[in-house]
Amino acid sequence: MPTGACAPGYSEICAVPVEPDARCATIPAMKVATLRDGSPDGRLVVVSRDLRTAAHAESIVSNLRLALESWDRVAPRLATLYDRLNRGGVEDAFVFRAAEVAAPLPRTWQWLDGSAFHSHGDLMERAFKHAPLEGKLTRPLMYQGASDDFTGASQDMPLTSEEDGIDFEAEIAVVVDRVPMGTSAEASLRHVKLVMLANDASLRSLALIEMKTGFGWIHAKPSTSFSPVAVTPDELGPAWHDGRLHRPVHVCWNGKEFGRPDAGAMGFGFHELIAHAAYSRNLSAGTIIGSGTVSNAEYPVVGSACIAERRAIEIAEQGEPLTHYMRFGDRVRIEMFDSSGQSIFGAIDQRVVRADATLLS
Amino acid sequence: MPTGACAPGYSEICAVPVEPDARCATIPAMKVATLRDGSPDGRLVVVSRDLRTAAHAESIVSNLRLALESWDRVAPRLATLYDRLNRGGVEDAFVFRAAEVAAPLPRTWQWLDGSAFHSHGDLMERAFKHAPLEGKLTRPLMYQGASDDFTGASQDMPLTSEEDGIDFEAEIAVVVDRVPMGTSAEASLRHVKLVMLANDASLRSLALIEMKTGFGWIHAKPSTSFSPVAVTPDELGPAWHDGRLHRPVHVCWNGKEFGRPDAGAMGFGFHELIAHAAYSRNLSAGTIIGSGTVSNAEYPVVGSACIAERRAIEIAEQGEPLTHYMRFGDRVRIEMFDSSGQSIFGAIDQRVVRADATLLS
Repeated sequence: MPTGACAPGYSEICAVPVEPDARCATIPAMKVATLRDGSPDGRLVVVSRDLRTAAHAESIVSNLRLALESWDRVAPRLATLYDRLNRGGVEDAFVFRAAEVAAPLPRTWQWLDGSAFHSHGDLMERAFKHAPLEGKLTRPLMYQGASDDFTGASQDMPLTSEEDGIDFEAEIAVVVDRVPMGTSAEASLRHVKLVMLANDASLRSLALIEMKTGFGWIHAKPSTSFSPVAVTPDELGPAWHDGRLHRPVHVCWNGKEFGRPDAGAMGFGFHELIAHAAYSRNLSAGTIIGSGTVSNAEYPVVGSACIAERRAIEIAEQGEPLTHYMRFGDRVRIEMFDSSGQSIFGAIDQRVVRADATLLS
Repeated sequence: MPTGACAPGYSEICAVPVEPDARCATIPAMKVATLRDGSPDGRLVVVSRDLRTAAHAESIVSNLRLALESWDRVAPRLATLYDRLNRGGVEDAFVFRAAEVAAPLPRTWQWLDGSAFHSHGDLMERAFKHAPLEGKLTRPLMYQGASDDFTGASQDMPLTSEEDGIDFEAEIAVVVDRVPMGTSAEASLRHVKLVMLANDASLRSLALIEMKTGFGWIHAKPSTSFSPVAVTPDELGPAWHDGRLHRPVHVCWNGKEFGRPDAGAMGFGFHELIAHAAYSRNLSAGTIIGSGTVSNAEYPVVGSACIAERRAIEIAEQGEPLTHYMRFGDRVRIEMFDSSGQSIFGAIDQRVVRADATLLS
């Protein structure tokens, strides 16, 4: 991959200072998605900037997980295809339908989700009368979730019981290539290869029980969903800087706006989350790092990105939660737009359904 | 795979009652290991019962992770090779050396580790003056650890600092095939395809900090190590029943016996741990479920399987911990023997070393 020069489809992204000897790698601009084809890793496609058309990428690499293991070699070829697709130069391009996608990475090696928005933590502490967590402004919170069975943006979320407190959580997530143990925050950002939206579905009635154990969440975190499309940081232009994506995330619940908080308000940038994750472990190529629920201190104006936060506000202000969690049949829509109004990642738009008996055999 | 009849190398294992309509699947008897070959998944071999010889299995399947995705088809062929190997009938059999192994699954989709020995939890609560955890006798404790970068039985454990409180934890671990969300405990045991020993290395100084967040452990759980060999439940004979492995695990620290607690004393059986893990998620084939540190109420006689527990006993009995955590250069050895004195899994025997600067770049 060329460094120091911006070939077509490339430019230099170095949003945080890098170590003096570290080269600022060029990142190919592109959007990719994975179509469901019955296989566990799906079928990789490149998607046009306007999300209207797509082109099969299987002549380059069979799936995105493998692509990330050889990103420096594979990404320039995918970016070239992306350029051709945007110019209308791919003969067998086809209409891109978000209804046909899996998660960009249907399964991968690690899903490490932070909780990087301080206003979210503060609201939850106030509502549940938790003592303020020591060191919360200097030490990111992070849990490991299941990463082997993700849900596509338009796929139903099958769950067992409404009594479990079904919630959505709109988040930003990044995909890294291999990050060696002990990598510093300064050196971490160049490992970010792709950015996505996530719906980190949560079962809130179970979350508090599991939190008290200190062991993290097994029951409270069912399959996470991701946006139809993953994009390279370069696609995000000036909205991507300081290891943060500075755009509002739009959240609708059953067709009504629920919140549009700015994802740029992270208390820790992704470079700090990645370094935190890699303190005592290597991160394999394809590891996904999440921001936690997007949240702004201006919640009275911009709303929230999860129901639990709205309920926490209600508890703090009115003494009790008034908003019920999701019911079977409810829909959540999560989307982000660029400054011209173009959807960047496509929309997560999915329904919660009752897991049927055959599923629970 | 035949059911209801025991072909050579097979027998029926139904250690817990299964649902009335569930068939009790036959499980081929065998031992397998993975040799390091520079690839992420290594090279699968079948190992003789006495651990002296091995035979390459690549003509059957390239690695164990893939084998588990098609276990019903692949396992009988591996078992046939195992039978031939034990009878001396494999022409290109070679000497099996534990020094050459990776973990049986060098990387896999999930590593969900329980804490199923009540005496361990009780000792830790007493020492650290924690309030007893509500529901601890009816609800298993479980965390998700990194599963993409396991360590082989004889490989060094590179770690950053002795100040982090480096500890070993001798455990039992099982490997399952695909377990659908909502599978009951009664139906779970037939999903156990392999059994191993584990060293769930822990950084104790970081563990308490992370536990207080409720999010589980990211820093405190570096790469887990597994025994050289994984064995089918059938290999364990009568020692495998009630979803437990009823044999002592022998733990030596720098050549001295540290403990030999009975692994059969689990407060929850593996069937209950698997069902707990699968409450709101599917478990992919190759998921590993751990028992947590083996521990017995008879610790004054049998000792412990981790340093933290010995320190907890010292705090409870003498007011302060007397035993230091591991130093760089220290070795831990973890092994289990059958009733005739034969090592079942081979030994985990590894050294803690300082992660060097090149590793931490």
